[in-house]
Amino acid sequence: MRSQAERHHPDLGSALEHLLSSGGKRIRPAVALLTGGMLGGDADRLVTLGAAIELLHTATLVHDDLIDGALLRRGIATLNSQWSPAATVLTGDFIFARAAKLAAETDSLSVMRLFAETLATIVSGELTQMFTSRGLVSMQDYLQRIYAKTASMFELATAAAAMLSPVNETVVEQVRQFGYDIGMAFQIVDDVLDFTGEQATVGKPVGSDLRQGLITLPALYYIEANPTDPDVTWLQEGNLFSDERMDRLVVSIRHSGVIERSLDEARRYVDCALIGLQNQPDGEQRQALEELGNYIVRRSM
Amino acid sequence: MRSQAERHHPDLGSALEHLLSSGGKRIRPAVALLTGGMLGGDADRLVTLGAAIELLHTATLVHDDLIDGALLRRGIATLNSQWSPAATVLTGDFIFARAAKLAAETDSLSVMRLFAETLATIVSGELTQMFTSRGLVSMQDYLQRIYAKTASMFELATAAAAMLSPVNETVVEQVRQFGYDIGMAFQIVDDVLDFTGEQATVGKPVGSDLRQGLITLPALYYIEANPTDPDVTWLQEGNLFSDERMDRLVVSIRHSGVIERSLDEARRYVDCALIGLQNQPDGEQRQALEELGNYIVRRSM
Repeated sequence: MRSQAERHHPDLGSALEHLLSSGGKRIRPAVALLTGGMLGGDADRLVTLGAAIELLHTATLVHDDLIDGALLRRGIATLNSQWSPAATVLTGDFIFARAAKLAAETDSLSVMRLFAETLATIVSGELTQMFTSRGLVSMQDYLQRIYAKTASMFELATAAAAMLSPVNETVVEQVRQFGYDIGMAFQIVDDVLDFTGEQATVGKPVGSDLRQGLITLPALYYIEANPTDPDVTWLQEGNLFSDERMDRLVVSIRHSGVIERSLDEARRYVDCALIGLQNQPDGEQRQALEELGNYIVRRSM
Repeated sequence: MRSQAERHHPDLGSALEHLLSSGGKRIRPAVALLTGGMLGGDADRLVTLGAAIELLHTATLVHDDLIDGALLRRGIATLNSQWSPAATVLTGDFIFARAAKLAAETDSLSVMRLFAETLATIVSGELTQMFTSRGLVSMQDYLQRIYAKTASMFELATAAAAMLSPVNETVVEQVRQFGYDIGMAFQIVDDVLDFTGEQATVGKPVGSDLRQGLITLPALYYIEANPTDPDVTWLQEGNLFSDERMDRLVVSIRHSGVIERSLDEARRYVDCALIGLQNQPDGEQRQALEELGNYIVRRSM
């Protein structure tokens, strides 16, 4: 990943270094490598795929942070807090370009096609989110949004890895479904952690999604179960800014059963994922993928 | 091109319609179709390639206009004059994604690779331009900048068209060089028109590049030939904002021999392009490419 800025503007190298040094869990490339390894895919091409996916993810984060005006990500300064918007847009574009180049280096047209389709899904999802009225969202909207935002890239990781492996289309479809399921679970747990995490650990105020008008699964469940709660009515009228009411609503959500209910839903996705995995060749990689599926829900505890 | 927004957010369809309705000369797809036609390439795949290239070009314009804060392009409102920066970034990203998808649909890995490489070249060139001190630039900087900005995409149009045709690597290299030459000529003529065009026709003030600190070929030649002109010294000290001095400098450049000298340079690139074309199969398409080469310089008259 780091070598992708070579022979280009030196500031790009530092920007990429800065972005990659922040770490992150590299969970998407891990999923791709494990899936491809399980299916007997070529290791070099899988590493190229993993790097392409992580860079695609990084590029979308750079543009997201710019759009949200975020100053911190994973506890370190975002590019747009240090650079002009123009330089940030272009750095994101550059990382997209390098991700596309790495995807092309997998030497698979189906991987390239899926890669381009995934990028369109992610961006279209962000635009839909931008044009959706704050505070109002249906369950279907929510599921579509977290698919576009997160699960689509996990699908890419598993399906593309299978495309680089000596397996037929049925297997590609089976592992695509696995990627979808763990991706959905991953985002639901992220959305739960936004309510249950401590500010010190998560690095942002508890309930920050809701405070920005983003309705996630715990809030959806709470609204559904408590339609007459005055704070819910207030929220549904499009209000967001009374700190006192908002604090109270966040506390209500945090201490109601909707956190458990949301985690049950994430658990259900992971269970489906693990059942599907039983069709795949047994071995170290399959066990690691099972572990990873379980870890996704466990990290919320 | 228009169908690329189907099944996505409706506002994307209107944005794409708005961008494509502004027309533009569609010169890049024309070059790709003529080159591929001349070399016996498959018509359907060439049309897909042409659409991919025009959308790539459109996406870079959307992000450029955002970066420059431009309100008009080709006489019609830019996206960023009507939309938020966030929506504009994402619309550009979406068009990139669709361009990449169309490029993948050419079913050629070499085309995909070249496509990704070209995007990296364009973006890296813009970043370099952004970090270069205004008012100071060498001939080498200038040539690198217009290569990245314009000639690289003409190279893509010709080389990728050849990759979709039943020809060997020598021919790919020959038509790549043709694309490079006409692309360099195209941008030099554009830079001349910025000085010689009438404000009413060009839609921006005469000398607008220089007024924004962008040194193009006519200015470079003028600086070289008139190092002691007080307006030149003033410019090289990094000044840009005195309207009176700037107006006078633009008039000096406009009425000195450097306009002719710049056009001679563009003519030289076109001549090289046409000589190289003699190696290719004679016929309607080759004649049309010759015409197009001549038109590139003629439009400055």
